[in-house]
Amino acid sequence: MVGYEYYFTNKIKEDTTLRAYNFNAGPAAVPLPVLEQAQKELVNFKNTGMSVMELSHRSKEYEEVHNRAITLLRELMNIPDTYEVLFLQGGGSLQFSMIPMNFLQEGKTAHYILSGAWSEKALKEAKDFGETRVLASSKDANYTHIPTDYSLEDIKDGAYLHITTNNTIYGTQWNEYPTSPIPLIADMSSDILFKEIDVEKFSLIYAGAQKNLGPSGVTVVIIKKDFLETARTNVPTMLSYSTYAENNSLYNTPPTFAIYMLSLVLEWVKEQGGVKSIQKNNEEKAKYIYDAIDNSEGFYKAHATEDSRSLMNITFTLPNEELTKKFLQEAKERQFIGLAGHRSVGGCRASTYNAVPKEACEALANFMTEFKNQN
Amino acid sequence: MVGYEYYFTNKIKEDTTLRAYNFNAGPAAVPLPVLEQAQKELVNFKNTGMSVMELSHRSKEYEEVHNRAITLLRELMNIPDTYEVLFLQGGGSLQFSMIPMNFLQEGKTAHYILSGAWSEKALKEAKDFGETRVLASSKDANYTHIPTDYSLEDIKDGAYLHITTNNTIYGTQWNEYPTSPIPLIADMSSDILFKEIDVEKFSLIYAGAQKNLGPSGVTVVIIKKDFLETARTNVPTMLSYSTYAENNSLYNTPPTFAIYMLSLVLEWVKEQGGVKSIQKNNEEKAKYIYDAIDNSEGFYKAHATEDSRSLMNITFTLPNEELTKKFLQEAKERQFIGLAGHRSVGGCRASTYNAVPKEACEALANFMTEFKNQN
Repeated sequence: MVGYEYYFTNKIKEDTTLRAYNFNAGPAAVPLPVLEQAQKELVNFKNTGMSVMELSHRSKEYEEVHNRAITLLRELMNIPDTYEVLFLQGGGSLQFSMIPMNFLQEGKTAHYILSGAWSEKALKEAKDFGETRVLASSKDANYTHIPTDYSLEDIKDGAYLHITTNNTIYGTQWNEYPTSPIPLIADMSSDILFKEIDVEKFSLIYAGAQKNLGPSGVTVVIIKKDFLETARTNVPTMLSYSTYAENNSLYNTPPTFAIYMLSLVLEWVKEQGGVKSIQKNNEEKAKYIYDAIDNSEGFYKAHATEDSRSLMNITFTLPNEELTKKFLQEAKERQFIGLAGHRSVGGCRASTYNAVPKEACEALANFMTEFKNQN
Repeated sequence: MVGYEYYFTNKIKEDTTLRAYNFNAGPAAVPLPVLEQAQKELVNFKNTGMSVMELSHRSKEYEEVHNRAITLLRELMNIPDTYEVLFLQGGGSLQFSMIPMNFLQEGKTAHYILSGAWSEKALKEAKDFGETRVLASSKDANYTHIPTDYSLEDIKDGAYLHITTNNTIYGTQWNEYPTSPIPLIADMSSDILFKEIDVEKFSLIYAGAQKNLGPSGVTVVIIKKDFLETARTNVPTMLSYSTYAENNSLYNTPPTFAIYMLSLVLEWVKEQGGVKSIQKNNEEKAKYIYDAIDNSEGFYKAHATEDSRSLMNITFTLPNEELTKKFLQEAKERQFIGLAGHRSVGGCRASTYNAVPKEACEALANFMTEFKNQN
């Protein structure tokens, strides 16, 4: 038997459904109980006689879903009242432009630390709006680690400092965040909610939902109110953070179904015991796979240096192209999905986001060891 | 019994589900067979062992969904190969800025015909990007009709002419579209696919999906290739139509689940016999309600003048506030949802988008007549 099977525990009893071992980099695994809940109420949401996606975004029923998502995120991340929680569209990629559009004031410089392809893209968009500076970069090392060779003394007059906390492609992740003298902005698209963090270190956190928060189509922005007040005002309505803050992200029709899914994912995180439990789980999950790499006598090589290893995306290579191909083929036959590495790194990548079950990581580690022994 | 009940015809047999009479202005009704299909495969899409929202947007399985939606829309609307079909985010509201950002060239004027609140908003955003002109407006008549008092001779050197084909708030709709000497751009958010149209009259058509196309969270753009070539190039990546055209709307992660729902809605339209059948159906649906108004001896008054009546949003008032309140209360008790008019018009509004069943419109007409007779 491949994958793992389960029987619906709800009303839908006739069906047996195969679950793949989903290691996709994003869109990625969603917790099974969340999918089951969404399935159960897809046609008739809380006895409204409508699907949640058929509700008016001005209805009481939808507003409860919307506000529940905000309340849960505040609770789970311990977000103070001095911050707004906003729902936008366009993914992290639109944030790359919205941030300088709103916060790169004339005469100031935006500082970027480059730790991978996504931070490069963020920088590229900022260049259209004003002065930028690369404060540090590990590009020369093919982004095997998070840069450490920089001084925060240099940036005192800057508009903001931008970092990417986890690098999906390279499999690296920041351990500790800088204490920045200027507003710190973080792209947490691929590791938001993976562990407890101190939100107050940041002026703006953004994250596309499709890794740790649910389906694609909604972007979460957590923004400090006094930072928001410094935003430029000559910004198109839909590209101004103030529009979302002033209207509880209901200026126009939000992506209601995606926000509903987000609310279910957050309920699930809470049921797991909150972010602390999720973190412990993530550490155990990653350990299975990193152990399989470290105990392989060099058969598997991690792309990331040990101090920068990501708990979300584990990147590794095999001795040669041929074995990599064989590995991916055999993995596929066993229902391991999404293991091919990004073309800029090659090899393999296992994305072990919050919703990926421990069982899947253990199974992958076992398969890796088995494959190594046979090849 | 209120509303109408149905039994699942698929595997999920135990459940009896109440369906409301959904007259929401958007997000709005989705065809029941579409919701049932989505429900059936929500946890396990086509035996992948994953939900469609867990698939990588680079996977073969997702790309099939994505391309199927494009192919179906091309087929149903008879869109020539000289046009691109794109999927964006941010709703119609983001289009209000993207259009002038891409197409309002320096030294040119963008012409707007104002037929309601949404065209006003579109104009407002354009003003930030260059010269604009109101070619015609029915604002003085509280937007009871589509303006006709303009000459297209005047606009020969303009950048583009913008119209809103259907006005959700006021319940008015264009019958025939102008033959414009400059690129014609249309916001069809609330009436795309409601009848057969000649796409070639337009250089750009845009529509948020949440009325006739599915859930909120995806915006469809149909753009003429040679018009796209005239776009400004100094536009942020995510706000440039070229980015979507060059990458088959897969430059970054698209809202995959919303596009999947769109593909199911389009399959449903095809199964109904295509847009011609949908149109016939829409005409019959609207007739029930307009007849109830016209035969009420002045008890109900339509907001729109007869030549501008919308088949999508039917707006009407009652003799006084008290009766309006009573009407809405009794309607609610009978599971008619979304009938309160917008505050700028008052009274009532019934949105009869493609997915609203004829049965619901007939029931509403009967209720209106009954209410009138009793009051």
